[in-house]
Amino acid sequence: MTESARSLSPGSPARQASLRAHNLGVLLAAVVDSTTPPSRADLAQLTGLTRATVSALTDRLLAAGLVTVLPTVRAVSAGRPAAPLVPAAGTLAAVGAEIDVDHLAVRVVDLTGATLGERIVPGDHRSSDPAPVLAALAALCRDVVAAAAADLPVAGLCVALPGLVDSGAGRLRIAPNLGWRDVDVVGALSGLLDRPGLRVVQANEATLAAQAEARALRESGVTSFFYVSGEIGIGGALVRDGRIVAGSHGWSGEIGHTLVDPAGPRCGCGASGCLEQYAGTDALRRRAGLPIDRGVGELSALAGRGAPGAVAALQAAGHALGLALSTAVNLLDVDTVVLGGTFAALVDHLREPLQQQLRSRVLWDAWAPVAVRPALVTSGAALAGAALSIRSEIVRDPLAWIER
Amino acid sequence: MTESARSLSPGSPARQASLRAHNLGVLLAAVVDSTTPPSRADLAQLTGLTRATVSALTDRLLAAGLVTVLPTVRAVSAGRPAAPLVPAAGTLAAVGAEIDVDHLAVRVVDLTGATLGERIVPGDHRSSDPAPVLAALAALCRDVVAAAAADLPVAGLCVALPGLVDSGAGRLRIAPNLGWRDVDVVGALSGLLDRPGLRVVQANEATLAAQAEARALRESGVTSFFYVSGEIGIGGALVRDGRIVAGSHGWSGEIGHTLVDPAGPRCGCGASGCLEQYAGTDALRRRAGLPIDRGVGELSALAGRGAPGAVAALQAAGHALGLALSTAVNLLDVDTVVLGGTFAALVDHLREPLQQQLRSRVLWDAWAPVAVRPALVTSGAALAGAALSIRSEIVRDPLAWIER
Repeated sequence: MTESARSLSPGSPARQASLRAHNLGVLLAAVVDSTTPPSRADLAQLTGLTRATVSALTDRLLAAGLVTVLPTVRAVSAGRPAAPLVPAAGTLAAVGAEIDVDHLAVRVVDLTGATLGERIVPGDHRSSDPAPVLAALAALCRDVVAAAAADLPVAGLCVALPGLVDSGAGRLRIAPNLGWRDVDVVGALSGLLDRPGLRVVQANEATLAAQAEARALRESGVTSFFYVSGEIGIGGALVRDGRIVAGSHGWSGEIGHTLVDPAGPRCGCGASGCLEQYAGTDALRRRAGLPIDRGVGELSALAGRGAPGAVAALQAAGHALGLALSTAVNLLDVDTVVLGGTFAALVDHLREPLQQQLRSRVLWDAWAPVAVRPALVTSGAALAGAALSIRSEIVRDPLAWIER
Repeated sequence: MTESARSLSPGSPARQASLRAHNLGVLLAAVVDSTTPPSRADLAQLTGLTRATVSALTDRLLAAGLVTVLPTVRAVSAGRPAAPLVPAAGTLAAVGAEIDVDHLAVRVVDLTGATLGERIVPGDHRSSDPAPVLAALAALCRDVVAAAAADLPVAGLCVALPGLVDSGAGRLRIAPNLGWRDVDVVGALSGLLDRPGLRVVQANEATLAAQAEARALRESGVTSFFYVSGEIGIGGALVRDGRIVAGSHGWSGEIGHTLVDPAGPRCGCGASGCLEQYAGTDALRRRAGLPIDRGVGELSALAGRGAPGAVAALQAAGHALGLALSTAVNLLDVDTVVLGGTFAALVDHLREPLQQQLRSRVLWDAWAPVAVRPALVTSGAALAGAALSIRSEIVRDPLAWIER
């Protein structure tokens, strides 16, 4: 049986073996998260572990191909040369996948976070039958892994979904824009991938995108924000002190169906006047009079040239987004809003009507105005988050991976 | 200098004295929170402290008049008789006060939580000048304390306010229904009370009411809920695992200005179509055609007799409240909504239209329907929360009180 780091929970006695597993994760995380490659001495200082423990654990990580030593450099002060440690490149494959309304995507990363391979396949999954979509995604996973990581052990697969993921029941509960209800995505993919024992997990796309953004924002000091993700559907997630605030079921942050106008259009969720009907990509195209195959780049260019339909559509979207975000800010009390997905690309058009709503509806705007910023991770944020979440599992518990 | 429990913070070295202060608080909390009065032996078991430590600390709490020994009872099994400990009655005064749009209130409780004295004075503080209202509240505080607790040491005063309290800046930022902006409530009250050194604090009324409700709900096992407080203004607070979720500035839960209809009436906050304009008490009276001096009891009775104006007003209020709560549930992912203040009294009229909105707008209603319950603390919840918050400060750090 594997003595994994998971067994070190608060309140339970820490046995030697589980302590070792825990410390192995602490060390690997320190190597992965460091901006400059740390030496064993640096790691002892960073973690508070003894030099001897650091050396023994580092040897284990080296032997398992999880870290590598860079060519040694001589320290500025006299003494032994430092041996900087970095996460190992190209020794394992962490697979992120995405089912969205207008595309499938797969990305393979290694422990450094570098992309080994990626493919995005456009499609139209509105009101689709889950079975062929899942079969296509499984085939795409096999292709990308075969092309980019044929010889590598696969650490796991995380699939980003545009809907409510019920982790307890292991099902995608509802994805309104796909028209899916109660689908066993993990079970279906596991069956199709022909890799017995492969860890397959699922998560909400906005949550994964917010995780990728939180990682990108770390250096800037912004650790708490509401992330709103614009696609055909609109999702959201609250990040507080660098971590997702999950709520009772892991479903918090669902801003897409916030009421904008009771007289507004009928929404895929069954209600009327939801934010998605103003600021979702299909709604934007419809309001701007654009065919369904046009991207937000074209919409933005049209608005830039002053085309009245495009300008009006973006004005309405910014207004609706501002209304919904005002409610979110009043309820969550958060200082920063991050615009992700299509909203990052459209920020120049959305910002003014959006901020006008924040100014008039956020109760504390006069004393603590909300900062609005486009996401740093502009393309494939959910896909990036999915791949990184598998990588994070290895970092959290390297021993479970080593002893698999 | 007082060696208070506050100095025992994570990451700082725990000196003997601060450890003792911390343990004194742990013991007093165990006595205050126990449903059956614990003996010293029970306390040792409950807290994990040694019998000797428990005895020494208990003696200190007894000497300070913070706990008392009930008449000893003989244990069922053989052995020494148990000496059950209870919080001391009538040894100190914790003062809660409230400034609301239609009343002022003061309540004095002791360490048992029992009310020693209380007065509620109706008034009309819409668009009022803060100075005379604060003078009236100070006079009321003096009167109630003089009548109910003249000989007792006063532990502090907490005032509940219907607006945004900025703890950092020490000011009430805005209370739209009072028409107050940037008022130094604590400074003004401190100056008026003629008790130099008295601890005076302020907090949002819905937050305090939610704290009182969380305490009342503990026995039922409901520890996470969104509390919505109906008065002339509408406030809210999120309780997760028994604790208020504060947000970045302590302002989270502000549901009163959630958009219900952009074509709706102008609100005191400056925006239009806010929840308060449908479900606040003034709005209810206006929509039902009732004069401003009538209570919600009369409104409820009228609706019970089928009076069309009252029925329509309550229907619109339930609908609006359901819309706003759907948004809150989708954003916060919480299983239970507690209706406080006037909403508790009106629950029979509000429940159906409210739950209809939750059913149609909460994304996970089919798998995890939201429970809606009236508050257990039905009258003066904010006042109760204010008095209890001063009592909680003593319980958290008895040594600071003993050594004052």
